[in-house]
Amino acid sequence: VAKRLEKFKTTIFTQMSMLAVKHRAINLGQGFPNFDGPDFVKEAAIQAIKDGKNQYARGHGVPETNAAIAARFREDTGLVVDPEKEVTVTSGCTEAIAATMLGLINPGDEVILFAPFYDSYEATLSMAGAKVKGITLRPPDFSIPLEELKAAVTSKTRAILMNTPHNPTGKMFTREELETIASLCIENDVLVFSDEVYDKLAFEMDHVSIASLPGMYERTVTMNSLGKTFSLTGWKIGWAIAPPHLTWGVRQAHSYLTFATSTPMQYAAIAALKAPESYFKELKRDYNAKKEILVKGLKEVGFNVFPSSGTYFVVVDHTPFGLENDIDFCEYLIKEVGVVAIPTSVFYLNPEEGKNLVRFTFCKDEETLRGAVERMKQKL
Amino acid sequence: VAKRLEKFKTTIFTQMSMLAVKHRAINLGQGFPNFDGPDFVKEAAIQAIKDGKNQYARGHGVPETNAAIAARFREDTGLVVDPEKEVTVTSGCTEAIAATMLGLINPGDEVILFAPFYDSYEATLSMAGAKVKGITLRPPDFSIPLEELKAAVTSKTRAILMNTPHNPTGKMFTREELETIASLCIENDVLVFSDEVYDKLAFEMDHVSIASLPGMYERTVTMNSLGKTFSLTGWKIGWAIAPPHLTWGVRQAHSYLTFATSTPMQYAAIAALKAPESYFKELKRDYNAKKEILVKGLKEVGFNVFPSSGTYFVVVDHTPFGLENDIDFCEYLIKEVGVVAIPTSVFYLNPEEGKNLVRFTFCKDEETLRGAVERMKQKL
Ligand SMILES: CSCCC(=O)C(=O)O
Ligand SMILES: CSCCC(=O)C(=O)O
Repeated sequence: VAKRLEKFKTTIFTQMSMLAVKHRAINLGQGFPNFDGPDFVKEAAIQAIKDGKNQYARGHGVPETNAAIAARFREDTGLVVDPEKEVTVTSGCTEAIAATMLGLINPGDEVILFAPFYDSYEATLSMAGAKVKGITLRPPDFSIPLEELKAAVTSKTRAILMNTPHNPTGKMFTREELETIASLCIENDVLVFSDEVYDKLAFEMDHVSIASLPGMYERTVTMNSLGKTFSLTGWKIGWAIAPPHLTWGVRQAHSYLTFATSTPMQYAAIAALKAPESYFKELKRDYNAKKEILVKGLKEVGFNVFPSSGTYFVVVDHTPFGLENDIDFCEYLIKEVGVVAIPTSVFYLNPEEGKNLVRFTFCKDEETLRGAVERMKQKL
Repeated sequence: VAKRLEKFKTTIFTQMSMLAVKHRAINLGQGFPNFDGPDFVKEAAIQAIKDGKNQYARGHGVPETNAAIAARFREDTGLVVDPEKEVTVTSGCTEAIAATMLGLINPGDEVILFAPFYDSYEATLSMAGAKVKGITLRPPDFSIPLEELKAAVTSKTRAILMNTPHNPTGKMFTREELETIASLCIENDVLVFSDEVYDKLAFEMDHVSIASLPGMYERTVTMNSLGKTFSLTGWKIGWAIAPPHLTWGVRQAHSYLTFATSTPMQYAAIAALKAPESYFKELKRDYNAKKEILVKGLKEVGFNVFPSSGTYFVVVDHTPFGLENDIDFCEYLIKEVGVVAIPTSVFYLNPEEGKNLVRFTFCKDEETLRGAVERMKQKL
């Protein structure tokens, strides 16, 4: 294996999902729903396949898909973007992240990221040769230590990589935090790469795209995908929205990472992105109900549950159960209890910082959530 | 844009396909069929979507897909590989190429490639920081200058990147050439990355996977995809087959480039890979007929047509028509004649070497091919 990837292990999501299958455990680990996506989107994919939309898409996206992404972004943020010059369709947000790093970051560039973080951030920054600086978000509220952040920004800082609503903690960046980041970036000529795949799962406050703050659009790559919003995580349709000069870099990397994204799925994305507001409302209502079941259950089990404002994740402190660290706890939970959670230490530059915390997802039907809680009540 | 991608332009395929649309030209440029893939594969995708196979696939592939890929490889090459440890499903062969480079090549490693080459090779090698050495295949037969190749292999050579049947020339590597490459690699401990996406479009001789030569499997990454063989270029299902120690690197990069590949399309791939031999025979027969129409037509138009043994491409010398170089010729061809071809100079480390050559594809219905020939006869 090349040195750039030497320190990385098999992604924790793969490890845990494979253990879930092996031990027939209830999988509250990797974030994929155990229910299906909406029929109107599935029907659109089927129609596209039948209609022969089966050859290479244009590299940066099927024109109507780019347009639908721009229209949704406008509806969500008020920003008017050119679908031809500022939108790139990618194979999931994961590819948007990789293309952004490889397309815009040079070896030695400093990039700031907030720990805990989705593991692909660190790996793709390593591919790009970036120098990574981590700012740790700490329980109970995982707020941004703004003074620490200010001190971390230097003349070598090329970008801040952020994620709101935040995986794994469920934290949402407050307007004040976003404004501080924005002014830091503007003052120091720093870019923002913002992963917003959970934007439609914002329960406690409204989601704000940092690109919509004054002066920020021109320095922001906003990344999103279909997977979480439409319960179709396996379709791998993502995108990056950025001003033309940044889109150029993203597209160049994308061209050579995957060239183009599945054509029929891009046609289905058009239907999805045009969903009525009622769809998003219902999604949020359903997830709120699931969240209540899981959070209440975890508290009853005896966890210290940290508040989650968005995403379909919740982080808890497992130490009441007396296991050494998050890895040991998750192993015990799978083998002895039959429930899968995700240890968080892998999401920190310094794994020690995550050793008390594990993540549960509530993107499962209510019976599954209740079943998992029941197992934990009985066996933990 | 990051330095690693600075020298690369918008891929020629995108440029040309966009010009084709703009000028309503007949597109014999980018290699995508203007006919649809087979119903039994489309039906399998539709069924998978209906059956709710819509969540994240396992990172390295749906187990049955990995198994079907291994089974096909065995049928094609006689090699028995472990689908769990030696097969990785990727988002098209383009992603397999990127993952192989980023997963296995370190900055400064020397990699040899044969020019002309599919443009993603050079770009992904640049992402990996490789030192690229080019060996040029020259008309009329584009055979490998074996002495030159031998001289190019040094103790710093990490890999030889090859492609047979070869895009853009249609050349197929002969057994003698493969044996020379194999013995060079074994002697000098060099890896082979072999792109074999056109393996089922081998007209003049049998396709041989270099992995099947004695001592080679352990040092070879064999890459392939569904797109060309099943006329479904837009589905973006590819894979890499390699021994476990190389697969590890490929999978690590793949995990962080795209994480996983479209789940319903992977299920469809299972059906495709189990196609009866008659499917492949018919495909070849159909393409042979198309090839004859195009080659005969191009000769009648007055091109010097180089023999193509495989792929759905044919390369010609355009100089009888008096234009300065391949770019000018292709521009004239689009604007004045209404036909799109691909200039080849972009596929060389030294563009000069390709200035007389342009590539046409025959992956179009016969009427389209005849129409293109007609236009050229009238207006060239
Ligand atoms: C590849 S897993 C993507 C993110 C996610 O679903 C998770 O964090 O569980
Ligand atoms: C992205 S285009 C892939 C290869 C091909 O089809 C071509 O060479 O035209």
